Order: sequence, then C-alpha cells, then structure tokens
Amino acid sequence: MSPVFDPTTDGADQTYRLLTAMVVPRPIAFISSMSSEGELNLAPFSFYNVACPWPPILSTSIGRRNRDHDRKDTWRNIQETGEYVVNLVSDEIAEQMNTTSGEYAADVDEFQIAGLTPISSRRVKAPSVAEARVRAECVLERIVEFDGGSHALVLGQIVSISVADEVWVNGRVDLRALKPVGRLSGNLYCRTHDMFSMVRPD
Amino acid sequence: MSPVFDPTTDGADQTYRLLTAMVVPRPIAFISSMSSEGELNLAPFSFYNVACPWPPILSTSIGRRNRDHDRKDTWRNIQETGEYVVNLVSDEIAEQMNTTSGEYAADVDEFQIAGLTPISSRRVKAPSVAEARVRAECVLERIVEFDGGSHALVLGQIVSISVADEVWVNGRVDLRALKPVGRLSGNLYCRTHDMFSMVRPD
Repeated sequence: MSPVFDPTTDGADQTYRLLTAMVVPRPIAFISSMSSEGELNLAPFSFYNVACPWPPILSTSIGRRNRDHDRKDTWRNIQETGEYVVNLVSDEIAEQMNTTSGEYAADVDEFQIAGLTPISSRRVKAPSVAEARVRAECVLERIVEFDGGSHALVLGQIVSISVADEVWVNGRVDLRALKPVGRLSGNLYCRTHDMFSMVRPD
Repeated sequence: MSPVFDPTTDGADQTYRLLTAMVVPRPIAFISSMSSEGELNLAPFSFYNVACPWPPILSTSIGRRNRDHDRKDTWRNIQETGEYVVNLVSDEIAEQMNTTSGEYAADVDEFQIAGLTPISSRRVKAPSVAEARVRAECVLERIVEFDGGSHALVLGQIVSISVADEVWVNGRVDLRALKPVGRLSGNLYCRTHDMFSMVRPD
C-alpha cells in the first residue's frame, strides 16, 4: 500500500512536511519592508508566486512567529505601510538570504546581519536589495486570511520592476545569467542551471 | 542605466514576460478535474504554491482561454464541481505534461492525448493521474477574482495526499527520488537534481 495522508488525522506537522516536499521547486520572495517607525526588515518566503499576471499581482503566504504566534515583522510592516519590495535570490546571494531566515527581533536590521545593501526604491518607501538582480516594488492589494490559519496570503500589486544590466540580454531577462535559486524541503535548495526546453503544442 | 519597467506604461505583454522570468523556478500543478457532465480535463499551471500550510490550502492562478476569453476548462470544472486533484510533475512525465498544455476543446480528454492513466481518487470525484508520484485531492475553498483580472486565484483545501512508494523513504518524501520539474520562462523548464543544503540560523 502506498502511503496516503488525511491532513485532519495526520495533523499540522506531518502535513507541513508533505506540502514543502510536494510543492517544489518553489521560487523565493526575498522581501524588504519598513516598519512605520522606519526599521528595515528583510526575510525570505517561498510560498510565493504570481497571483495574477494582469494586473500584475504577486502572492506571498506569510506566517506567525514561533515565539509568540504574533504576525511576522514582514506581515506587520506590509499591513502598516502598504508597501514592500520582492527581491530575487540568485546563486550569488543565496547564503546571505539564508542568514536572514533566522527569527530575529523586530529592531534587528537583517540587511546588516547578512551584509546586504539597502538602496532607495523608485515608487515605495521600503528599500530594495542592491545585490538582487530583479526587484519588484509592490503596494498591498489585499490580505486573504483563513479561519484558524497559520498563515495569511499577502497580495501585492507591482508598481515597478528593476532588472540588473548583466541579466538583461537582447531585450529579455536571461535565465542562464540570472541563476535563480529554488526552495525544496527541509534544508534543501536547488540550482536551476540544468534547463531544458519543451515547445507547447498548438 | 539598468532597465526599469512600469507595468502601467510597459503593458500586459512585457509585464507577463518579466513576471514569468523573475518568479522562478515555479512548481507545476498538474490539475485533473471533471466537468459536471463527467468530461475529464488535465492541464498544467505554474502560478501555483501553498496559500496556507494549516489548514492546508493550495493556490493556483488560472486564466482565460486565448480563443474566446472564457474561463479555462479547469477553472470552470472546479467552479462547477468544487473538486480537483493536483498531481506532481517529475522528470518521467514532463513530456506528457507538456502535451496537455495545448489549448484543446472542452470535450477533448487530455489523459488520452498524453497517454496518461486516470485513476479513481479517494475523496473527490475528479480522477488522479496514476503516473504522478504525489497527488493532492482538493475541495474548493474560494476563488479570488481581481478587477479586470486576466486570471483568478483558485484556493483549494487538501483533503487527501497520496505518495508513491518509490519516493517514500524513511518516513519522508525523498526529493532525490522525486525529481520534480520546475517551470522557467518561455519554453524553458529546469530539473532539480543540483541540490544544496543550508541550515537556517537559530
């Protein structure tokens, strides 16, 4: 008999392990935000994707902190200010991204901890990550909450996208130059160098 | 000057190309569904992720058809029946998945076209894909629509997860055995064999 799981009886921990191993590989939203007091925050989230291409809306599922079950700083900052930036994680900044994934106090600046550089964004007050090769500036569209939900789904509309010169080739983002990192389960990540092409049928 | 884009002025097509190149690599939801008349449907979607781990809710952004801008069959089936199955795409069935990605008439059975096998699901009427190594049966939680949106966000709560024996190793899904395929932009996909590990800071 192949294993079969019912979330109701198998519980939240087992279900979480299954989800993170079956929804793979996941893109990483490296989110920079600012509190209403001006404190910077930077943290990675991989329950992330396009919610709608037009108008361009990104979705990011953000949870509560382990220590007190309050909203994570990123969630609180976005709710307070209505703004954030999604930065892309490529091979070059994977380790710095991981450094920011610890659970730090709200007044800790993860840019400093990781040695990354905050730069001014174009359309929002939240800073962008200078070292990120693509940066999407977002304004909050809505937050979808779930009854008894461990996480909420933050939907943000993109108002500006910046692309680094070195990955912009012949009028497109070059995936081979970009080298985005994917999230798997546990401590595992994947590189995306091993590409292949398939043409969609007419 | 590095390229900067404003969706409002650069338009939907350019924004779509940027989105699909910056939200990468994307997991693939290979969704099997059934119409209220019992017609089977099978199609891949990569604007997909976990919306909430507990209760376990998956999000999939589904668009309208090119030919008449009506809802895609998968969207209509889920809205009509409230049920569907998300099947995992691994290396072994990548080509079959691509075969189903064409835009076929509603009465075309993509299982047949791709040579995949529909099998009964445990908790929903929509069939599962026998060849998929992980299958998550879902019931519709809600559909989030956007003003003038090209796509809607379909949220489904997982009621059952089936895992194939060959990828269940020591009480976990083994990612090296699973070999999930990631979606990039254009015709590009990536394999996930090139893994690395990073330990989250305390």
